[in-house]
Amino acid sequence: MKIISGGVTAARGFMASAAAAEIKYKGRTDMAMIYSEVPCVAAGTFTTNVVKAAPVKWDQEVVYHHPYAQAVVCNSGIANACTGAEGYGYCKETADATAEELNIPADSVLVASTGVIGMQVPIERIKNGVKMMAPVLSGTLKAGTEAAQAIMTTDTVKKEVAVQVEIGGKTVTIGGMCKGSGMIHPNMCTMLSFVTTDASISKEMLQKALSEDVKDTYNMVSVDGDTSTNDTVLLLANGMAENPKITEDGEDFEVFKKALNYINTSLAKKIAGDGEGATALFEVKVVGARTKEDAVTLSKSVVTSSLTKAAIYGHDANWGRILCAMGYSGVQFDPEKVDLYFESRAGKIKIIENGVSTGYSEEEATKILSENEVTAIADVKMGQASATAWGCDLTYDYVKINADYRS
Amino acid sequence: MKIISGGVTAARGFMASAAAAEIKYKGRTDMAMIYSEVPCVAAGTFTTNVVKAAPVKWDQEVVYHHPYAQAVVCNSGIANACTGAEGYGYCKETADATAEELNIPADSVLVASTGVIGMQVPIERIKNGVKMMAPVLSGTLKAGTEAAQAIMTTDTVKKEVAVQVEIGGKTVTIGGMCKGSGMIHPNMCTMLSFVTTDASISKEMLQKALSEDVKDTYNMVSVDGDTSTNDTVLLLANGMAENPKITEDGEDFEVFKKALNYINTSLAKKIAGDGEGATALFEVKVVGARTKEDAVTLSKSVVTSSLTKAAIYGHDANWGRILCAMGYSGVQFDPEKVDLYFESRAGKIKIIENGVSTGYSEEEATKILSENEVTAIADVKMGQASATAWGCDLTYDYVKINADYRS
Repeated sequence: MKIISGGVTAARGFMASAAAAEIKYKGRTDMAMIYSEVPCVAAGTFTTNVVKAAPVKWDQEVVYHHPYAQAVVCNSGIANACTGAEGYGYCKETADATAEELNIPADSVLVASTGVIGMQVPIERIKNGVKMMAPVLSGTLKAGTEAAQAIMTTDTVKKEVAVQVEIGGKTVTIGGMCKGSGMIHPNMCTMLSFVTTDASISKEMLQKALSEDVKDTYNMVSVDGDTSTNDTVLLLANGMAENPKITEDGEDFEVFKKALNYINTSLAKKIAGDGEGATALFEVKVVGARTKEDAVTLSKSVVTSSLTKAAIYGHDANWGRILCAMGYSGVQFDPEKVDLYFESRAGKIKIIENGVSTGYSEEEATKILSENEVTAIADVKMGQASATAWGCDLTYDYVKINADYRS
Repeated sequence: MKIISGGVTAARGFMASAAAAEIKYKGRTDMAMIYSEVPCVAAGTFTTNVVKAAPVKWDQEVVYHHPYAQAVVCNSGIANACTGAEGYGYCKETADATAEELNIPADSVLVASTGVIGMQVPIERIKNGVKMMAPVLSGTLKAGTEAAQAIMTTDTVKKEVAVQVEIGGKTVTIGGMCKGSGMIHPNMCTMLSFVTTDASISKEMLQKALSEDVKDTYNMVSVDGDTSTNDTVLLLANGMAENPKITEDGEDFEVFKKALNYINTSLAKKIAGDGEGATALFEVKVVGARTKEDAVTLSKSVVTSSLTKAAIYGHDANWGRILCAMGYSGVQFDPEKVDLYFESRAGKIKIIENGVSTGYSEEEATKILSENEVTAIADVKMGQASATAWGCDLTYDYVKINADYRS
């Protein structure tokens, strides 16, 4: 696997563009378009929130009930959530406008929004944005980067990644972009991720690869425990790599899945590390769990604990909070068997052994916890299963971003 | 029901005292003792965390396996959690020392601790504290207040409440004190609550009353979603009111339960409103739910949402976050049927009707949300069940208290 530059335009046949449509922001781009020269099979995973934004409902229709997708239109600023039939109608209008500009069927256009809830999108500006973006679609890496910038909200950095693998003697490229947590006019830690590939693969296997992979990647990210109404991951495959079409399990599928996992893990970690107000990426590995499900529950319980996250911000080896968060997760384990380590670029230290402090050096622990990527590893010694979750520290700025609504 | 002054010494035959034992703090009291002139029946509810502090294990033994309790000894500063066999041994030593001073059996002594995890208590100082407190036990309200002050950690106000009811022609008094969330050397939002009554009631009915009531009171409080290793509610009844002994369901039991509910609700709200760094008590009422369980899940999901709590701190009528938190709770409901209100001393306002904004005045909403007690009421129109949860806003100070570990 070769890590390469680029994002959604890295794979053959994919183009992108951006526009400053003034949906809500001024003086920056706030709409992005992705387009494939040829129709793609599409897979998607969507928020499990009972309250689903209109674009989520629209995309579920396209992904689940139509054979092909060929374009994605995304806006930042307004989420188009809790907007009723009117909001859903605007998804259709957006798709119609895009279909007309690109000369493709409206039911092959995916839409996505991120921003404030309960507000209708200014549909004329959206349609105007579509008109601006269609003629300037480009397959350059720069165009992909501009799209990645346009979908940012309180994200402090654009998020893209791309890799190449060999499948059946052909070079297959996968690239992606995403936006993470938070809004200038904040509402939701909406996560949107768009991944494109030139792999030749059946729609069924594409969905299978994505559905399996999100469990270990995006679903293991938590910024604040709030699941957005708009969370969406879309994966488009246009077949232009001309590899032998992947239609069943096997070596080719495994190679594809491994590359997809790299893309999704990278994007997930970028989201966690750029959580609202975050100063550090906080990774929690649980090993030695009885089942995978136990490992997932334990690691997510720690990574979402406000007390633990505040301790990470304070560079404090507050292992009691970690053990406590594991304790209330609902998973059965023996606290008096747990070993716990902290690890970062600055080193690795064993903090507790069999549930009791090792008498570690606080100074060394603080040094390790002062890096901007910090890992806690808990061994519960019950079995062979493991899981990794990603989050961030809890800071003054998280509160500031989410409380100072009108400032 | 008559609300009276006082706390744990309000009921006949109960005495209290406090001591500055220098467990961890200096220049303030940090140990409290409660004593009844005669043996009491005792009921208790304890943390569901798999990681249970040593005092929790000790008290479970006393409450579940011994007929009487007569004293409680509590220290703040160190939680005696994750301390292994050594920590449990210190509970026994504390009980032995108390038993000797008060001339009662050691297995009638309850112990409680709150503070930092993973550190052993200085047992000689604890025993010294016991020796200081036993001779100065007093039945005055002042003595109860001093005990309530000694168990405080980052609590900003002492928490006590007392009521009187008539049962079988006799005046029965119930009083209580508690401490809430946070530590100067922070670790856990440990909740400790001690309630005393002179009611004559069987041990079985006392436990029944408490177990039923905690579901609607303490268990509906969330400061940050972290369930402590030390959470403990103890209820002692010494029978000195000489009412006809309550041994079964019936009118007398209902009157007792109603009074107990008032005590526990008051203490639970005091804990929520004094959450670490909080500027407001945030109450969430869900009405019209299909089942009580649904109503509980929905209200607790809203009250623990970091995004919602930050919005309350910002006095922001961010109803999207509330609907979103209900949406990811796991309860099925129709978002397009929900009505939502905000209410406080400053008035009441309908924010959404059938899932869509009412076009309310933002100015009026902000005025209502600027009070220090704020209620959100959500009507999901699915049935008749309701529930109320209590929490607080999420502030800079919460982060400060929990991150600045060594300052």
